[in-house]
Amino acid sequence: MGNMKILPKTLKGFRDFLPAEARKRQYVIDILRKVFESYGFEPLETPALEYEEILAGKYGDEGDRMMYKFEDKGGRKVALRYDQTVPLARVVAQYGNDISLPFKRYQIQNVWRGENPQAGRFREFLQCDIDTVGTSSLLADAEIIQLVYDAYKKLGLDVVIKINDRKLLPQISFKSLAVLDKLNKIGEEGVLKELQETGLSSEESRKLLGDTKALKASVDILRIREILKENGYSESIIEPSPTLIRGLDYYTGLIFEVVSSKDKSGLSLGGGGRYDDLIGMFLNQTVPAVGFSFGFDRVIEAMEKQNLFPDELSTTKVLITVFSEELSEKSIEVSSALRSKGINTEVYLDAKTKMDKQLKYADQKGIPYVVIIGPKEAEENSATLKNMQTGEQKTLPLDQLSESLK
Amino acid sequence: MGNMKILPKTLKGFRDFLPAEARKRQYVIDILRKVFESYGFEPLETPALEYEEILAGKYGDEGDRMMYKFEDKGGRKVALRYDQTVPLARVVAQYGNDISLPFKRYQIQNVWRGENPQAGRFREFLQCDIDTVGTSSLLADAEIIQLVYDAYKKLGLDVVIKINDRKLLPQISFKSLAVLDKLNKIGEEGVLKELQETGLSSEESRKLLGDTKALKASVDILRIREILKENGYSESIIEPSPTLIRGLDYYTGLIFEVVSSKDKSGLSLGGGGRYDDLIGMFLNQTVPAVGFSFGFDRVIEAMEKQNLFPDELSTTKVLITVFSEELSEKSIEVSSALRSKGINTEVYLDAKTKMDKQLKYADQKGIPYVVIIGPKEAEENSATLKNMQTGEQKTLPLDQLSESLK
Repeated sequence: MGNMKILPKTLKGFRDFLPAEARKRQYVIDILRKVFESYGFEPLETPALEYEEILAGKYGDEGDRMMYKFEDKGGRKVALRYDQTVPLARVVAQYGNDISLPFKRYQIQNVWRGENPQAGRFREFLQCDIDTVGTSSLLADAEIIQLVYDAYKKLGLDVVIKINDRKLLPQISFKSLAVLDKLNKIGEEGVLKELQETGLSSEESRKLLGDTKALKASVDILRIREILKENGYSESIIEPSPTLIRGLDYYTGLIFEVVSSKDKSGLSLGGGGRYDDLIGMFLNQTVPAVGFSFGFDRVIEAMEKQNLFPDELSTTKVLITVFSEELSEKSIEVSSALRSKGINTEVYLDAKTKMDKQLKYADQKGIPYVVIIGPKEAEENSATLKNMQTGEQKTLPLDQLSESLK
Repeated sequence: MGNMKILPKTLKGFRDFLPAEARKRQYVIDILRKVFESYGFEPLETPALEYEEILAGKYGDEGDRMMYKFEDKGGRKVALRYDQTVPLARVVAQYGNDISLPFKRYQIQNVWRGENPQAGRFREFLQCDIDTVGTSSLLADAEIIQLVYDAYKKLGLDVVIKINDRKLLPQISFKSLAVLDKLNKIGEEGVLKELQETGLSSEESRKLLGDTKALKASVDILRIREILKENGYSESIIEPSPTLIRGLDYYTGLIFEVVSSKDKSGLSLGGGGRYDDLIGMFLNQTVPAVGFSFGFDRVIEAMEKQNLFPDELSTTKVLITVFSEELSEKSIEVSSALRSKGINTEVYLDAKTKMDKQLKYADQKGIPYVVIIGPKEAEENSATLKNMQTGEQKTLPLDQLSESLK
């Protein structure tokens, strides 16, 4: 079986996650899921492959170019999931009556995009989305902001949620935005002057500045701030940001973007907003929605930089070594006993391996404790427990072992 | 955006999992992961897409026919993950020194196969695999059997693990196997007679029967039985099964198959075995391995049949209704307070919705409790708590609410 000359390698932009990495990912997913569920969001899964016509034309020219498309054996044109929002729209249309609105769903699945991997982007990456579908109530927007803040907090990340209102944002040129962004630095007069230098008339400049100021007083944003305050959140977690635009043109109301308040790189850790015209696309009617997408890879990166992963992510607490063939069953017995007490226990699987190699194995896997049961221990019904970090070791009766490991 | 005439539908053999289903799946995955980790198995993730040459020719003709293959935009021949064993073999070859052997990994990811969906098979389905790579010690086989039994037990499934030894199983025809399978029913003489009726000589028949009896005394099986017994497992959890062959021809030693001991349909709930010649395929050397694959969809089906899912799989404990626009912030406040006490709490997101519709929403979502805060309650700092199952309701001070919900 298999051609022996095949080089074992992965496609560009695709990644293996070995245990150390996979554990970090699982750690983040578990926390996010828990927060999502604490707010009553429900899980949804959709297939990796969809009919191409479901996805085509929904993501602009770039999307159509980067989408993985092919013809299956039955001649059907199919495409790999490109995001989780269009599949959500399909689900809402397909199962109408089985879904009671508002539908608050979370979805944590991979998507595939033929990005240029040189740019540090991946062709397969995990999306973590929450969306509330079927209500235009501002309470839904406020809830998502609150949840988002809680989620990053639980991960250990201090963030600021930049917020803007698409309704106040007519077509502004990037040049003008860059000027407006300097408001705090150069003041109103400075901004007006520079806006006119970009080619706007005096009147246009004043209108734009007025819109920008209006944003800070946006009724929606004020209301959200009020709700957050009453729930014990600091006002400063949201930051009205007139220059925030977000690339996707499907947003129709509030838009948010999360940045780390520590790392001033301004890199987005996630974003979202209200998009009332998208979810109803397969229904030919308006279905209001608001959602947020966590930037999973960016979150992992930020947590690594800030050292936010627990030291002991290895889930195995103790390795029971095997002294000899004859004593192997004793070791297995002890491992079963510890496991039944809720301690994640690995038993070394080869009685012929020398003890120092078994200890090295525990070390390489980051297992914090090792148990040795030699002839003397077996006779006395005891075990030697070694702390791999300090090197300390002590011999103690078997029935005290689980206590010492807790 | 979007063509309004597109029918929202999924490809044949592909499934959406709405919240009720998705929760069941997550419930099973969480239990399996916990058991895997309690034995020191570590998570691994590999990409959905591989170079075609990595996968091609590894699964026989049927595999090559059912594999999803295509050319990507860059002209690379790629294929969707077909199982998790070949990717594991690639990983072992690719990261050599970063992986300390024995490598005990679990992997829970989707695979894609162009099966005939008419036959009740799916084209996208989840595989849950554990494999121990790099040791030929029988302790590894025993550990997997023990783990497998524990895992099904934790899911509530009573199972028998059928076991056979490939080494004792030369090329036997299906006809002969069917005869051997009647050993308990028709006795040795009956079997010998029927074997000769299939065309075997008297000598061949006697040899085959001898092998079958040898199996019951297989040293490996006896040793495993011994280990299990010392760990407090009943002997009856493994059942030597001379007629067990398992389709895949890569097994080289013990093979196992799990069936429900209640449901006598004999449907396999999972299977595995030792395969010492596969994992080394990209290394051109022998790397011993033993593994097991849980039949995820079959497990879900069996659990549904036997009513093994908890009644309250909905993770949301309580819905806080919203009485009016003015009282909405009070409701949000109460929901935040409950959430901070660890209670999964959903607040109804639209103050304009009538109360009976809000109660119906809770009912449809299977949320067991509802809280109502009307003007009287708001004034008294109290809340009305309604049990959705019994219809019972009582009004109590806000600070006693979380206690009543625990």
